[in-house]
This record gives sequence, structure tokens and C-alpha cells, in this order.
Amino acid sequence: MLRSFLRTALLVILSLSILSQPFAQSGSMLGFNSDSARSQNALEAKFDSFLNAENLREWMKRMSAQPHHLGSKYGKENAKFMEDKFKSWGYKTEIAEFEVLFPTPKTRIVEMTAPEKFTLKLNEPALKEDATSGQQKDQLPTYNAYSIDGDVKGPLVYVNYGTPADYEELERRGIDVKGKIVISRYGGSWRGIKPKVAAEHGAIGCLIYSDPKNDGFYQGDTYPKGPWRSENGVQRGSVMDMPMHPGDPLTKGVGATKNAKRIDRKDAETLTKIPVLPISYADALPLLRNLDGAVVPDAWRGALPVTYHFGGGTPTVRMKLEFNWEMKTIYNVIAKMEGRERPDQWIIRGNHHDAWVNGASDPISGMVAELEEARAIGELAKTGWKPKRTIVYCAWDAEEEGLIGSTEWVEANADELRKKAAVYINTDSNGRGFLGIGGSHTLEKFINEVGRDVSDPQTNLSVWERARAQQIVNGSPLDRNEATSRKDLRIGALGSGSDYTPFLQHLGIASMNIGFGGEDGGGSYHSIYDSFDHYTRFNDPGFKYGIALSKVCGHAVLRLANADTLPFEFTNFTDTVGQYINEVTRLTDTMRDDTKRINQLISSGMWRSVQNPADGLREPKMKDEVPQINFDPLKNALTRLKDSSSFYQRVSAGKQPNAAAQKALDEILYKTERVLTRTEGLPRRDWFRHQIYAPGFYTGYGVKTLPGVREAIEQRDWREANEQIVIVSKVLENFAAEIDKAAKLY
Amino acid sequence: MLRSFLRTALLVILSLSILSQPFAQSGSMLGFNSDSARSQNALEAKFDSFLNAENLREWMKRMSAQPHHLGSKYGKENAKFMEDKFKSWGYKTEIAEFEVLFPTPKTRIVEMTAPEKFTLKLNEPALKEDATSGQQKDQLPTYNAYSIDGDVKGPLVYVNYGTPADYEELERRGIDVKGKIVISRYGGSWRGIKPKVAAEHGAIGCLIYSDPKNDGFYQGDTYPKGPWRSENGVQRGSVMDMPMHPGDPLTKGVGATKNAKRIDRKDAETLTKIPVLPISYADALPLLRNLDGAVVPDAWRGALPVTYHFGGGTPTVRMKLEFNWEMKTIYNVIAKMEGRERPDQWIIRGNHHDAWVNGASDPISGMVAELEEARAIGELAKTGWKPKRTIVYCAWDAEEEGLIGSTEWVEANADELRKKAAVYINTDSNGRGFLGIGGSHTLEKFINEVGRDVSDPQTNLSVWERARAQQIVNGSPLDRNEATSRKDLRIGALGSGSDYTPFLQHLGIASMNIGFGGEDGGGSYHSIYDSFDHYTRFNDPGFKYGIALSKVCGHAVLRLANADTLPFEFTNFTDTVGQYINEVTRLTDTMRDDTKRINQLISSGMWRSVQNPADGLREPKMKDEVPQINFDPLKNALTRLKDSSSFYQRVSAGKQPNAAAQKALDEILYKTERVLTRTEGLPRRDWFRHQIYAPGFYTGYGVKTLPGVREAIEQRDWREANEQIVIVSKVLENFAAEIDKAAKLY
Repeated sequence: MLRSFLRTALLVILSLSILSQPFAQSGSMLGFNSDSARSQNALEAKFDSFLNAENLREWMKRMSAQPHHLGSKYGKENAKFMEDKFKSWGYKTEIAEFEVLFPTPKTRIVEMTAPEKFTLKLNEPALKEDATSGQQKDQLPTYNAYSIDGDVKGPLVYVNYGTPADYEELERRGIDVKGKIVISRYGGSWRGIKPKVAAEHGAIGCLIYSDPKNDGFYQGDTYPKGPWRSENGVQRGSVMDMPMHPGDPLTKGVGATKNAKRIDRKDAETLTKIPVLPISYADALPLLRNLDGAVVPDAWRGALPVTYHFGGGTPTVRMKLEFNWEMKTIYNVIAKMEGRERPDQWIIRGNHHDAWVNGASDPISGMVAELEEARAIGELAKTGWKPKRTIVYCAWDAEEEGLIGSTEWVEANADELRKKAAVYINTDSNGRGFLGIGGSHTLEKFINEVGRDVSDPQTNLSVWERARAQQIVNGSPLDRNEATSRKDLRIGALGSGSDYTPFLQHLGIASMNIGFGGEDGGGSYHSIYDSFDHYTRFNDPGFKYGIALSKVCGHAVLRLANADTLPFEFTNFTDTVGQYINEVTRLTDTMRDDTKRINQLISSGMWRSVQNPADGLREPKMKDEVPQINFDPLKNALTRLKDSSSFYQRVSAGKQPNAAAQKALDEILYKTERVLTRTEGLPRRDWFRHQIYAPGFYTGYGVKTLPGVREAIEQRDWREANEQIVIVSKVLENFAAEIDKAAKLY
Repeated sequence: MLRSFLRTALLVILSLSILSQPFAQSGSMLGFNSDSARSQNALEAKFDSFLNAENLREWMKRMSAQPHHLGSKYGKENAKFMEDKFKSWGYKTEIAEFEVLFPTPKTRIVEMTAPEKFTLKLNEPALKEDATSGQQKDQLPTYNAYSIDGDVKGPLVYVNYGTPADYEELERRGIDVKGKIVISRYGGSWRGIKPKVAAEHGAIGCLIYSDPKNDGFYQGDTYPKGPWRSENGVQRGSVMDMPMHPGDPLTKGVGATKNAKRIDRKDAETLTKIPVLPISYADALPLLRNLDGAVVPDAWRGALPVTYHFGGGTPTVRMKLEFNWEMKTIYNVIAKMEGRERPDQWIIRGNHHDAWVNGASDPISGMVAELEEARAIGELAKTGWKPKRTIVYCAWDAEEEGLIGSTEWVEANADELRKKAAVYINTDSNGRGFLGIGGSHTLEKFINEVGRDVSDPQTNLSVWERARAQQIVNGSPLDRNEATSRKDLRIGALGSGSDYTPFLQHLGIASMNIGFGGEDGGGSYHSIYDSFDHYTRFNDPGFKYGIALSKVCGHAVLRLANADTLPFEFTNFTDTVGQYINEVTRLTDTMRDDTKRINQLISSGMWRSVQNPADGLREPKMKDEVPQINFDPLKNALTRLKDSSSFYQRVSAGKQPNAAAQKALDEILYKTERVLTRTEGLPRRDWFRHQIYAPGFYTGYGVKTLPGVREAIEQRDWREANEQIVIVSKVLENFAAEIDKAAKLY
């Protein structure tokens, strides 16, 4: 499901001349003493020697040979295939099954009834250049899962990306979507936000299309000539209200086992409020051509050969959608290798295996890298080696519909995971290009070290050096500056969009999401053209970056599993939290200045005086002035955090505590992430418990850091902002107290 | 010919509350004492009362009723029509004729010969909604004047806007245009730059098309539904190398009178080096669709429904162009009203009357505003009033082909103009919206005062207040800041593109260019659809902004003609020159930093390491490091200038010198602009003599301020930069000395 390549922000003090040297293993290894680091390096070299790109190719061909979505026969076969593999490699393997709600289309009719008749095709044609594209019988039709049923008719309004800001623009134009159907382009926010915001504004239906500007011929040659989405390609996808909670809509917070307590479907808060359907740009073109009203502003215009208008009068569109609301069994594959010393400390590694259709890229490209990694670790085990901690390999089902497989498994095993889960490492679609990492910043230094020791397949650099070079060459001046003043690349914060969410944001398990990308653009996402043929022509033909992914994640798993002390580190986390605190402070100041300025422009009549009378724009509404917000509690907490993290760094540098204390120390370290959660969760969405990272309520996948504080500010709820500042500050203080406890064990 | 609305930068210290007041006449009037200011206000009110929008409508309808380009029968009739009008209003009127080289098409063939056959239409069809669009017999075909003859064939390369920076991008891609035909879109530079730079790089032909992204359906509904360029619209236009010199290509520097000394056509430096032709986007589409090679970067992509490629292999295109190289007579109308007190001080006012086809907007919308202004001044004269100084109204011919009418007249009358011309005020196409002013900054304070006293037709503000409000509401943060800290709106600097160029840049006559625009977008420019029908539907239907233009320019003429002392002012000029000096200093510093940084990225291998191997990009060449440049002479000159201009401001404030000194004072004041010129001209283009403002050698219309210094820096000619700094500093010192002379007369 994961869409966008995770960008890292990268910064280092090393001079440019490093590029003239071959990449070198870093001297120290976080969590290891020099002896154990040496044998760990040898172990990783051995691990690398087992990796074989041909396996990735063969497994991708096999697993993407048929459509393998949630509930499909081939999805179950893939699970069984992997179960057998894991077993053969020496893992204790099981298939964890759940029963979940899964709607599939019964009726899909969209037609323009005026000013001319047009019935949308709603169909992706087979291509002779793509061997699996003709498996129509087993393909899911093009649709958005968890749209409600509906039969609606009304005038169409173009809403750009359908974000709250887009509706502010519509309001200024005097355009109301009440009782109307909206058409939004993909992009600008996660797709589920579009029908959610449309419904909040009174729309009765929502079409989502892929505009060629974002995802089609504007970007490059279309499939099969090039990798980009052709006029008939459609992006399927879930539109459940995941920012409320992911997973099965009927079993929030508990595992969807056969006998789990379920709510009634009509009470499920994550189904959409209006019918929604995705369409191709060939289907969208006649509709857009018939929109009336004013011309949209520049930022709203796509690449279709029409003048984009707001609409609101014509055309009239009818949408009729009916779904089979069925319960389906899903199959997570869970494979364990018991730790020899600290078996109750789990290093968990996962990728989903279900797809929308054939899913060669999403998710099989990541899944086969994980399989090869697991196989190589199995090979190591056959030589007699055993990890100090337990390694758990997972292959999730039903991710595409709303992270269902991982969420249900996490909810069903919450108590055990709270105790034992040390780190979760996720991958999803993998491509060619630059290492991208998002995750808990307590693992930032660790994963930087891992990246420094893996070579890039296309250059003579490490994957870390190439990511850093990218930031220096193509980054903003700010990025470039960071790159000359900070030792580690800054990793991104995680919002949502793949299976780390239940681990990180529901349970507070330190997590990372890792992948390569940036040089493999294309538009096969969630279409029948995400195939073996497409992937091996345009993405990572030689599976070299698949192997690089196996290395980065495999080394990370091996280090985490073997370390004397778990390699958590707190000064980088503190540095980044300090940035977040600056951001929310500046955001408030900017909003205060802007509000004052714009209110003055409106009340003085100046705003009105410069409007083109021909445009008929309404004046924006004046907004309440922004009061002073007291950020001192956060600043004080940050000071405390700085002290504690520096102190821990000093006492732990180059040392290990005595053997007796190590297990206890580990437990304090990996449970620091738990302290960043609160059982009460975030305001209005208690399933999301993490106080530092959350998917945005109105962005979807897009992360909001310090979400309680930031979203209160963005929503101009100043009372809540002040409350949340106190809450988050307390969380940070508690976190500092845990670091202090850890420091005492040295 | 003038294309883009002149943007003003606006800044004032008045509080926002000014907008709640009706606009008020400013207390003081530069160059007048309080008594004379009072009677001047009364005179202007009387002038306003004579203005009648119906005249503008009637004259536009008449003058745009037939195509009236250089050499056309109707163009001559229009000249005669105006001559009669001016005479009837009491002006001493003559028609000044010149004989100039004017090529018109004999053969125009463009065809794609591979991979498929396609012959371009090269034709704008008549529309039933546009009454004059069917006058094919009298219309000039679509072509670029002063393209050479040629018959060439070769592969096509897409070069974006065809600027030097675009060719750097091509070079990095390993794409050579040598022996090939380039296709460039309009925009990004003046059109004449495109074949010039293409030829410098070895191209053998050049097509220029209007991309709908810049000028077509992407911007808004196309004609006749809306105002924008339709798929068959073509932008005609001159491609003579005007940055070398405008005017008749055979008589550089001298008036093209019947017996003038002419060079041979083959020696004319302003003809193109390769054949050039403009085409519509309907004609461009099949060519662009067949371009091979890599996909162009985002900034190069237009709005046609194709993936834009560089080309270089296919398609193959043949262009055959032959022209009738004929001598034609042109007709400038010159109408004088003698000054009663200082007849040898001339206030000159002009607009061109020739068009590419019917030219309702370009130039008739400006021409009719000038005519109505002249008529109203004639009415004033009939009441017994006479101007103190001589007023000269001009209607230029042959502007479209290269400012030919104005240039030849200025060259023919150079000696007299050097002595007598005090100020030249130009207009061209006029639209609806915001007052835009470019010009000599010694007139900035004066024209700000004028603008404060003319009411905007759409609001209850003055045109000045509305322009200022626009800057405050929609300007950049920097613009907004200026708007709260500077008393006057900063006027733009003049490059080229209309008839002020020979006055300002060849002779050093203080000039201004004035017009309204910003709310009347459209794409009729230089097509057969620039018609009365188009203008009165989409531009200024009620001619209210035509009348506003008559008022702004009429008041300016009346004040300049009547002032006790000519209203030149030097502190605003000094402020702006100070900005220019800062700009060239910062430009050099930025180039130095960038050169260092990029050279390091290249030499370290870092640049190469982040390139996508699939793109096959070449490394940029390393550039010579930027040495330290000594800007001290300019800074010292600026200090001198500040002292002199402040001193003059103090001694002249609220005073007039004794009557005997006034004429001498005037002459010093208006000849300060002459001091900003040098007979040697600019490096490599001696016709352009102004040292502060010039059209860019590689931008065309776009201005380069401190051109000698700035272009040397841009071309990395550090020796020349240092030389030019000394030259320009001396010019500024001389200018300061003239101000000191003026101050002595108080």
C-alpha cells in the first residue's frame, strides 16, 4: 500500500572527500563491544554471501502470477508457499487467521446524464505486452474498498485534491458541494481523506481520478511504452477512515478472531459516509470537459487537454454502487527463530503479501527481499549460529484494505507484544535509487550505522553515502547545510500507509520503515499493470536493490538480535523533538501574524479592492485572532530531555553494563517507546496512542509530529492546544526519567 | 508590440486605513507652487470633463476595421485619419515618412517527412463570432518578420524556451542541435532570442509555437468561448536582433529617409541567421508527439496531451521559407502644440498605430486613449489656455517590426531632440485592472503624484491606491514590506518592447511607459483574433480603463507642460540605483559560492553519484572560479549620488528659483538623463547608450539594469565587469555633478 518513497533528511560532518574513498565500515558499532562488533561484521559478511537475486526474481514471478488480494484463492496459496519456505529454513512457523469484513463490488454504474450522455467504462483493458493483465476473471474490479452502497445523482464539482484547504477556496468562490457529487484528483492527501472531507461539506458522492499531471503521460511515457499510468489505468485503494483506526472496521482494538465481539456494520465509524469510486483519466475526461463555472486557479489544473472549471451546474452525474459485504478469512504468516539468551526480547520484521491485483511491486518486491533475508539467516542458523534475541518474520495479509492483517495480529497479541517486542522493521514496495528510512528517532543512529556498511549497487559508495550525496546535490539549502553539520542522516517520521502503524502508534513499539526508491518512477500503483513484466522492465530489473534491501534489513535484524545492549540512542531523538517543538511554535506565530494581517486586509476593504470584479470572488471570513500559547512546558521538557540523553550518552559511551544488568537495561531501553504513548490516545481517536508521531487526521498517510499539539493548533482549538502541550510535556518528562533509569544501570 | 503588463513595485507609509477614505488629491505638486498647483488641479478637472469613452469605442471600431500593418493601404488611411483629427483639434500636424525594409512571405512550407507525413496548415481560420477574422485577402500570413530565406531539413529538437540556460540543459543531456531544426515554445524570453541562440548553437532552422500551458486552453477558455488562444491561433512577430539595434535594418543610427545611406541587406546584422516560423499548437502537436529521446524535465513541459521529449532523432522536418524583400513607406503622425513660454522644451507623447493584423488591443486600445487625451487638450486650448512648454503627440508606424517608426524619427531628428526633448511618455496596448508604470526613476515621485489623483473605474480608490493594494494583498513578503516603508510605489525599469526605446536608450530622454492590465488576460496577441469583437468582450468593454489611461497620461502631459520647474526628483532614483548595485554585488557573490560548491560536487564525484544511470546525463563542465570584483567605485559613486540628491531635495523643497533661472534649471534637470548615456554605447552594441537601463542581450524585451556591469558578470567576463564598474561609476558621478549644478540655481 505504501505510496511515496520515504525521504530522509541527511547530514554529516564528513568532508566531501569521503567520496573519493571506498566506503568503509564504521569503527564502532552501537550496542557491541569491539570484540563482539568484529564477529558481528564477520557474521554479516557471511549473511551477505548467502544472498541471491535469482531467488527474488523467481519468487516474485511465482507470487505475482495470479491476482492475490484479500480472500483470493491465490493469496491463500501464497501464504502457504511462504509458510513452507520459512519452515524449510528452520523457522517455527504458523499461519495466524482472522475473519474480517471485506466488501467487493456487485454494481458499479457511473454515467453522465447531462449535458450529454456518457457511460464510464470502469475497466482496465488487458495488454499483449503484459502477461498477467488478462486475468480478468480473478481480478478485483476497479473500486475503493469500504465505500458505502449508494445510488446518487447530482451536478458535478471539481474539488482539486479534496483537502480542507481546497474547500476554503471553493467557499471563497461561492461554490457549495451540498447535494452534489465531487470529482477529486488523486494526490495532495491520502485518498480516504477525499470522501471524508467531501461528506463533511455535504457532498453526496465522490469520484477520484488519476490526473495525468500527477500520474500519467505528463510524467513520462505511458505503459506499455513507458512505466507511467495510461489513460485506462485506475488506482484501486481503501478509503476506510484509517486516521480513526486501521484494521477490521468491526473489531476496533481487539483481534478479529472467529468469535471476537463485533459491532454492527452500520455502527462502523471507518466506513465512508458517501459512495466513492476511482476512475481512469479516460473516463474522467468527458466529465471534466463539461464542467461549467469559473476557471480554477493554476494550482488546481491538471494535464488533460481541457480548461479546468469548478463546475457546480453541469454536468449531471449518476453513481450507483452496491457491494457484497462479506466476511473473509485472512492469513498472516508468522515465523520465529528463538533467541538463545534473551528469547523474550523480539526483533520483528514484516512486509505484507496481499496485493490489489498481481502486485509485483506492491508488495511482492519488498516481500521477496524479506524472504531472501530470512532464508540467509536460516542458512546462518544451519551453521550453528543462533541469535541472542528472538527473531520474528511476518508476512501480512489484507494490508491493502487498511493494514488489517498486522493490526488484527497486533491487537490479538497486544499483551505479549507490549512485554516482548523490542523493535519492528517494516518494508513494502521496493524500488531503485536511494535508501529511504522513516522511524523512531531512538533508532536513528543505529540505522545510520547499518546504512554505512551496505554497498550501493550502482556506485562505489555505501547506500548511506549515496543518500547523503543526494541531499547535498539536490537538497534545499537547508538540507545541504544540515549535511555539513550533522553526523547522522535525519530519518523521517512515520505517519501511516504500511504495517508499522499498529506496532508504533497503537502499542508504542519502536519501528522503522525501510526501502529504496527515487529512480524507478511509474504509474502501475494499485492497477492490473503492477505486474512482473512491468517491474522487471522499469523498477529493479536485476533485483539489485532488492538484495540491497535484504542487506540493510538483514544487518539491522542481526545487529538488533545479537547486540550486547540494544542500540537505542537518545540525543538524536532529542534533537528532532526539539525541531518539532520549534515547528509548532513557529506555526503558531505565523498563524498569528497571518490572521492579523489578513483580517486587516479584509476589514480595511483592501482585499476586496484588488479582486477582479469579473471573478465574483467572496471575501474570506475573518478569523479569530491567535492568542499567546504557552510553549514553556514543552521547552522545559526538552531541556530535561537534553540533560538525560546527554548524560546517558556519556555514561554508556564505549561501555557495556555488567552482564547481570543487561537484560534489565534492554527492557528499559526498548520500553522507552511505550512511554511515548498514552492509553487515552489522541483527542477523538483513542486507538492512536503515540504522542510524537501520528497520521494526520486530515492528511491520512502524511505524518503529524506532536499530533495532539499540532492538530489542535491547525484546527485553531487554542484551549486544546494548551492542554495538549501539558500532556505531551509530561510524556517527554516521563521519557527522560526512563533514560535516567537506564543510565543508572551502567 | 508590448507584451507583458509592466509590474510596479509599490511601497508606502500610509496606514491601511487610507482605504476607508475617499482618495484625496495630494497636498503638494512637484514643480508647482501652491497657487499654480491649485489652478493646475482645476485645469485637470476641466480636462477630465471633456473625456468621452464613446470616442474610444468609435475610433477603435474604425481603426481596427481592416488589417493595418506596415505598408498596408489601411495603415496609411489610419495615419491620414489621425492627421485630420489632430489638425481639427488645433495641432500643427505632419506625417513623417520613411522608407524601410519589410519582408513578407512568398513561400511558407513546413512538413514532417518522417516517421509520418504531415504538412502544417500555417493558417488561422475565420470565425463567425469575429467580424473581421475573415479578411484573409488583407491579412499578413502567420510569420516572423526578418527571418532569412531558407530551405532546410533535419531532425527536430525541443529546446523549451530556447534560452542559453535551456541549451546548457541540452548539453548536459548530450543533445546537440548542430544541423538540426529546433522547436521552441513562446515565452521565457523575447521571441527574437530563440533563433539567435539556436543559430549560435548550430541549428539550421527554428519553429516557435504557442504552448497552451502559456498561451491557450491551460490558461482559460479559448476563443471564441473565452479570450484565450485557440489551437489555430498563431503569434506573429518580429525576430530582428533588436538587442543590437531596433529600427530599419539597413540604416542603423540614421533616419531611413528616401536618400539615406543604406547598407546591403546581406550585411544587415539584425536579420536572423537561420529561417524562423511561428506555428499554432494544432500544428505543433504532431511534431511534438513524434519527438524521440528522453523525457524533458518538469519545467520544460507544456500542456499538450503528450509526453514531452527532447527529440534529436525523430521526427524529421523540412522548412522552406522565401520572402518578398521590399522597401515600404511608413507614416508617423506628429502633432504639435507650441508652448507659450518655453517652446523649446518638448513633452512628447506617443503610441504606435500599426498592427500585425486588425490590432484592436495592440495597439489601438492605447492609441485611442492617446487620441482622446489629445482631443481634450485641444478643447482646453480652445478655451484660451496654452501650455508653458511644447506638447508633441505622435502616432508611430511600423512598431511591430522593430520600433521602426519611432526609431527612424528619433534618429532623423536626433540633434533637435537632444536639445529639446524633456520627457517621452509611451503607451501601447491597454487593458483592465491595475496601473503599471515603468520608466526613468527621476520621474518616479512625479508619476506617483499623478496616479494618486486619478480615480479607479472599478473601486472608490485612486488608481495608485489600487496598485498599492495589489502589492500589499498579493505581493511577496518583500513587496509587502516595501509597501509599509516607502512613500512612493517603485516603478519598473524599462527594457524594450515598445517605442520608448529610441528615446530612452539611444538618446537619453527621460521616459515612461504607462498602461493598465492584470484583469484582462487573453490570447489574441498578434493574431487575427485581436479584434474589436474580442477586445470589447474580454478586455475593457466599457473603455473605462481607456479613459483612466487618458487621465493618467493627460495629467502627466499637462503637469509636465505647465510646471514652474520640471518635476524631476533624484532621491528615488538614487534609492533604486542603490538596489541595482546591491543586486550585482550579490549576484557575483552568489555565482562565486555556487561555482565553488558545484565544482566541488563535480570534482568529488558526488554529482555523478546521484544521477540515475538510466538517464545518461553528462556531468556539467566545471567553471572557472569567480574572482573578487571591486565594487568600491560604484559604492563611492552611490555615496556621492546620495549626497547630491538629498542636497537638491533640501534646497528645492517648496521653493522655486527666480524666474530668470527657471529655464536654465529645467534644461539641467531634463538633460540629467543624457548624462546617463555614453556615445560609445554598451559593449558590442553601440546603438544602446544608456548605462542604467537596456534590453538584455539574451532576454530581448527583459530589462538589464546597469547592463554593462550586469551582463559582463552574467557572461563571466570579469575583466569587462571591472572595466564597466569604473565606467558606470563615472557616469553616476557625472550625474551627481549635474544635480549639484541644478541645486546652485536655487
